[in-house]
Amino acid sequence: MPARLQLPQGASCFTFDEARRRRALEARVVSVFEGWGYDEIVPPLFDEAATFDPSLASKLYTFTGREGTTLALRPDFTSLVAKIAAGRLRHVAPPLRLYYSGEVVRYEPPRAGRQSEFHQMGLEFLGGGGPIADIEVIAIAIECLEAVGVTDFVLALGHAGVVTSLLDEAGFKLEDPRRDAALLSLSRRDPSAVADALAGAGGSEVARHALMGLAEDNGIRQSVDEARTVLRDIEPARKALDDLESVTKTLEEAGLRNRVAVDLSESRGLDYYTGLVFRIYGSGLGFDVGGGGRYDRLLGRLGRPMPAIGFMLGLDRLALLVERQGGGESGPAPPSIPVGGESLGRLVQQARELRSRGRKIRFGGGE
Amino acid sequence: MPARLQLPQGASCFTFDEARRRRALEARVVSVFEGWGYDEIVPPLFDEAATFDPSLASKLYTFTGREGTTLALRPDFTSLVAKIAAGRLRHVAPPLRLYYSGEVVRYEPPRAGRQSEFHQMGLEFLGGGGPIADIEVIAIAIECLEAVGVTDFVLALGHAGVVTSLLDEAGFKLEDPRRDAALLSLSRRDPSAVADALAGAGGSEVARHALMGLAEDNGIRQSVDEARTVLRDIEPARKALDDLESVTKTLEEAGLRNRVAVDLSESRGLDYYTGLVFRIYGSGLGFDVGGGGRYDRLLGRLGRPMPAIGFMLGLDRLALLVERQGGGESGPAPPSIPVGGESLGRLVQQARELRSRGRKIRFGGGE
Repeated sequence: MPARLQLPQGASCFTFDEARRRRALEARVVSVFEGWGYDEIVPPLFDEAATFDPSLASKLYTFTGREGTTLALRPDFTSLVAKIAAGRLRHVAPPLRLYYSGEVVRYEPPRAGRQSEFHQMGLEFLGGGGPIADIEVIAIAIECLEAVGVTDFVLALGHAGVVTSLLDEAGFKLEDPRRDAALLSLSRRDPSAVADALAGAGGSEVARHALMGLAEDNGIRQSVDEARTVLRDIEPARKALDDLESVTKTLEEAGLRNRVAVDLSESRGLDYYTGLVFRIYGSGLGFDVGGGGRYDRLLGRLGRPMPAIGFMLGLDRLALLVERQGGGESGPAPPSIPVGGESLGRLVQQARELRSRGRKIRFGGGE
Repeated sequence: MPARLQLPQGASCFTFDEARRRRALEARVVSVFEGWGYDEIVPPLFDEAATFDPSLASKLYTFTGREGTTLALRPDFTSLVAKIAAGRLRHVAPPLRLYYSGEVVRYEPPRAGRQSEFHQMGLEFLGGGGPIADIEVIAIAIECLEAVGVTDFVLALGHAGVVTSLLDEAGFKLEDPRRDAALLSLSRRDPSAVADALAGAGGSEVARHALMGLAEDNGIRQSVDEARTVLRDIEPARKALDDLESVTKTLEEAGLRNRVAVDLSESRGLDYYTGLVFRIYGSGLGFDVGGGGRYDRLLGRLGRPMPAIGFMLGLDRLALLVERQGGGESGPAPPSIPVGGESLGRLVQQARELRSRGRKIRFGGGE
């Protein structure tokens, strides 16, 4: 094919069956989001580069806007949705349950077949605090996977408080680039890189040891009980473990415990998370299909403090997973019932029961 | 609201009811496209700037790609889809019936409320030649409007051959910038600007006179018969009028004549069209909601000669029109029946009858 007919490196293009499968998947996921009472937000394709998380700075596609400012194609939705919630939607009372579905663009190192455009579908529960909101988001994530016919999957649950309190104890200040390096190495589960990053740390021996333990595929990484023993003197870590345990207990009651696994090394590589974090893995795929977490400080930095939690799925990763596991059919989009008032575990079951009959619900009751 | 919470000028953002209406509209239009046997294509958000029509050069948002080439956010879909059809899809035998739905980005002069992002939904019938393809595309456009509940609308039909043959006769060469100026002024129906552009023309007096007549809201503009008399000596114009008349006659037979009006000044402002052109107007809206036309030379320039016709609707303009006229409900997406073999007018009726029962058809018969 002549060079002039080739698409630029990283550009994506879908046609025929592939496009049909993507659209059907998107519709199913959206109908789950809507079924749980989320409203769509369609943010702009680009915004000022400063809007986006500094950790994504090197991946931005930037250009000059009409006012001479540096604009960037959105590399993710969360910061943009948070900014809009704090700005244009400042008169809308929380909680704001918002979902989105669209393209993000990230400059990725030029490897063969590496895309720079991704379609992300996700939601942000702004003003959603505490375990009830954590559970809602996890239950929605689980339903999304079920709705598209993925049967063999697991959510790896962690808590940002574990990793960040250990980094604090290890003596890394927030602005220390070695802290970011340690965080990133940990999210890649690369013990030798974690060891390198920790070589510069001067703080608590226990914390450094625990961080190494988290990077390795054994030790305290998958056990809240073991972690509780090791981290008994680090109060914020203990508090994080309590939070996490209350979530897993609720999931147990709801009969969903088999859908989650504890992974205390999980921090999603960003200092931005403040609570529950998770990634979604399906068997047959060597990488996550999505993930999310709690970020209780972001809205405050934008002048509208409120707790927040969200998650997203990569449409193409999901399509790949569905293909590997064999997809199913989902029902049409339905009307709305508030569910609430009982124990959390029961509430999830009730919500799931209504959802399985195709009903539209508002989790946590009327608002 | 603090400046840092404002979105850049021209950036669009939709939430709540507005987002819900857009998604519902999009789904209805897509189900019409699919009902007529079109397959989705999801082209990249950006491509090399050179891909796009030179007439859009001043509206491109450009940036530098990873290979150092100048990339641009797509300002429309047609050139990109044509390039992909000639490149990546070169092994797929025509006809290719492709539809798209997504954002385009155009730099617009900074006026209040002017958007630079637009959501376009459209289709390209590549390899679709002759009146049968023209009629298919017009019938789909009509059904789209009906499917979203717009009752009061009209397609203004013209033929690029009328305007371009008159420009040829008036002595303007293809590369003459005054030709572009005349074309643009004509599409804006600005008689004094047309007169200015024509002041430099040295060719046929009849052609200049006819062009002025087209720019004015009277004379030959709305009558094929009158035009035929005036343009009797300009053979390509006569041929264009014949083509156009065969389309209106077929629509008459199909009971759709009331959905179209002849407007011989219509050329959509681009030299790129080669045959039927149209714009779609709805009462209550001071601008078109979309339009299309035949472009039989574009694919040839890309090394894969074939006739082609397409059209598109602007999602937000359509949403506005639906709001002004009051929207309706449309049926769900259906399975596939080939219809073909009879007179074109009857064929359209049959197709429309099947479509009205929610059936999926392949217009023109099996392929």
